[in-house]
Amino acid sequence: MFEFEITHEDGAARAGTLTLPHGVVRTPVFMPVGTQASVKTVSHEELRAMGTQIMLSNTYHLYLRPGHEIIQQLGGLHGFMGWERPVLTDSGGFQVFSLSDTNKIREEGVLFQSHIDGSRHLFTPERVMDVQHALGADIIMAFDECPPGQASRELALSAHERTLRWLERCRARFSELQAEAGDGNRQMLMPILQGSSYADLRVDAARRTLEVSEWRGIAIGGLSVGEPKPKMYEMLEALQPELPTRLPRYLMGVGYPDDLVEAIRRGIDMFDCVAPTRNGRNGTAWIAADGQVNAKAARFKLDQRPLDEECDCFTCRTYTRAYIRHLIAAGEQLGLRLLSLHNLRFLIRVAEQARAAIEAGQMERWADEWLRRWRGPRAGTATSQET
Amino acid sequence: MFEFEITHEDGAARAGTLTLPHGVVRTPVFMPVGTQASVKTVSHEELRAMGTQIMLSNTYHLYLRPGHEIIQQLGGLHGFMGWERPVLTDSGGFQVFSLSDTNKIREEGVLFQSHIDGSRHLFTPERVMDVQHALGADIIMAFDECPPGQASRELALSAHERTLRWLERCRARFSELQAEAGDGNRQMLMPILQGSSYADLRVDAARRTLEVSEWRGIAIGGLSVGEPKPKMYEMLEALQPELPTRLPRYLMGVGYPDDLVEAIRRGIDMFDCVAPTRNGRNGTAWIAADGQVNAKAARFKLDQRPLDEECDCFTCRTYTRAYIRHLIAAGEQLGLRLLSLHNLRFLIRVAEQARAAIEAGQMERWADEWLRRWRGPRAGTATSQET
Repeated sequence: MFEFEITHEDGAARAGTLTLPHGVVRTPVFMPVGTQASVKTVSHEELRAMGTQIMLSNTYHLYLRPGHEIIQQLGGLHGFMGWERPVLTDSGGFQVFSLSDTNKIREEGVLFQSHIDGSRHLFTPERVMDVQHALGADIIMAFDECPPGQASRELALSAHERTLRWLERCRARFSELQAEAGDGNRQMLMPILQGSSYADLRVDAARRTLEVSEWRGIAIGGLSVGEPKPKMYEMLEALQPELPTRLPRYLMGVGYPDDLVEAIRRGIDMFDCVAPTRNGRNGTAWIAADGQVNAKAARFKLDQRPLDEECDCFTCRTYTRAYIRHLIAAGEQLGLRLLSLHNLRFLIRVAEQARAAIEAGQMERWADEWLRRWRGPRAGTATSQET
Repeated sequence: MFEFEITHEDGAARAGTLTLPHGVVRTPVFMPVGTQASVKTVSHEELRAMGTQIMLSNTYHLYLRPGHEIIQQLGGLHGFMGWERPVLTDSGGFQVFSLSDTNKIREEGVLFQSHIDGSRHLFTPERVMDVQHALGADIIMAFDECPPGQASRELALSAHERTLRWLERCRARFSELQAEAGDGNRQMLMPILQGSSYADLRVDAARRTLEVSEWRGIAIGGLSVGEPKPKMYEMLEALQPELPTRLPRYLMGVGYPDDLVEAIRRGIDMFDCVAPTRNGRNGTAWIAADGQVNAKAARFKLDQRPLDEECDCFTCRTYTRAYIRHLIAAGEQLGLRLLSLHNLRFLIRVAEQARAAIEAGQMERWADEWLRRWRGPRAGTATSQET
């Protein structure tokens, strides 16, 4: 259980399989985000049909509503959602800093107010382990301090050090919970590396995290949070020689299609992001040969082609650009749903295509060609503005 | 083409088949409403899977956006939507009175302002035939004047008389269009009976409408628009002996589940209503043994049963009450979609069950039992408050 087997390497890129209690995940993999135990507008059946191998859900949101005890009583997240494939829960670290009305960071943990009703709550590393143990995801995340994208070195250093101290407490509590429940093979805990855009802090985070325990995987947090894109790639390059090959690497909160391609060629295996659904709900579609496109564009008015002629998703197999454009212009929810569906499948397919390129030993050539088309002369608006 | 064959009669109730250019419709039938060429939140694939035989769409909305010329260029409503089964378009009569910012009724037609951008438009009987001919539905509706539910006798009489004068013009223009296009078997035109809650006006409308032409079916408009429910049943009873058995009878804008049962036993064959989707988007579910229920009810918090244990819809086969309750409470669009799906299937199934009861010669017994459960002690909030 929790074994990660690398089947192919091509430069820094890898193709592998990660064995989890609810199934085997083939990497590189994009994980759709079900913030509140639902990937917005999309059904589980549609997620399965588009090749979703593992779904992410947010501890912060589920803790507040409906509450982790209720989910535990209903058989954990799998039973609650009726989703039989693997699940990953994040630690709520990112949300308590970005979403809650107010938050106070102490060594003990973070005191925050709910964005729903203003009620006060304390997240400590121990508490977050308890909550995630109750939720029952296959992969759970350590509680970290996530500073903003352009954090000063001082703030970055302090967040990195605190994240390491909290990691020790997470590990200890997680071991206790597993021992109490006698379910050592039900969940794996992933540490999160902080360090903002400071390469030396990132390297330090990697080295010291690896000293804390034997891990099953390593996550990179605090990127794609407002720093310039080249900085993110630089950090991945700095980390690459530090991370043991045998561990799956998860780049949190990333990304846009081109981010996936750039990160996979730098050795990343796992991704999650709300961009596909958020863009879909904003009327934006991803098209391989055109980049990011406004689905309401006047030029689609009489266009009877699929949204993306190369795509195999339900939307592209079933509806025309003219009809989708009408739905978006008329404010019909079906339009936002069809775009969300397409964008999700688009990103899952980017990961699948990258995997095939790695297996064929063609990663660099494929990535260059893919990015050339995406960023090419036909490309629409700029990409990756928003995560 | 357009043949209506009655296969069973049971009291006033009938089971039949209506042959249309895009398929055969078995009656009684409920037609989901795709106001803007989309049944809100639901895909065509889902509509087919739940047994939708014919979809309704709104001339007023499609005329304003995207425009009937665009739809015509894209192959009519069928080509535009990618929907191969029968379609019915209403005439826009109801919408120009209820939705447009201002409207002026003249003998020529109705001058109204778009609810979208305030632009001015004139709907005449001829214009409405032109628009519906371009949209290309299997069944199109005559342009009528639809007075409010509690209309005075004077207003009801004037609307009824005008509707008859406009019907002559609709018929004439429709014949011209068919002759011009040489497509006499592509569409059928249905007249609409007005007369508000005055039985003698309703009878007069029926008799004089039948004198205007040979019709393929007859619609009853101006009911379920605010009048007391017993009034509606009274009007159906007054009309019943007046309407030739051989014509399908369409009760427009109805209804709620109990309205369907009550109207089918009074000889109605066809229905449409936004209630299933509108209620779904308001968090309301229909349950055979409970009536109309708030899906956010606290008692569903730990309830792992399907929404309606007797239902065969996708929602009830796949998700629990606890999960649906969470989705609604958390404001997730998937929740509104799952309720819309269930409510639509619920109403389609009421029509299917009524048909089976008629075939078995058990309509009265089935209807009494069905209504007893729906309105029974376990029933939730009052029904049919809203159409």
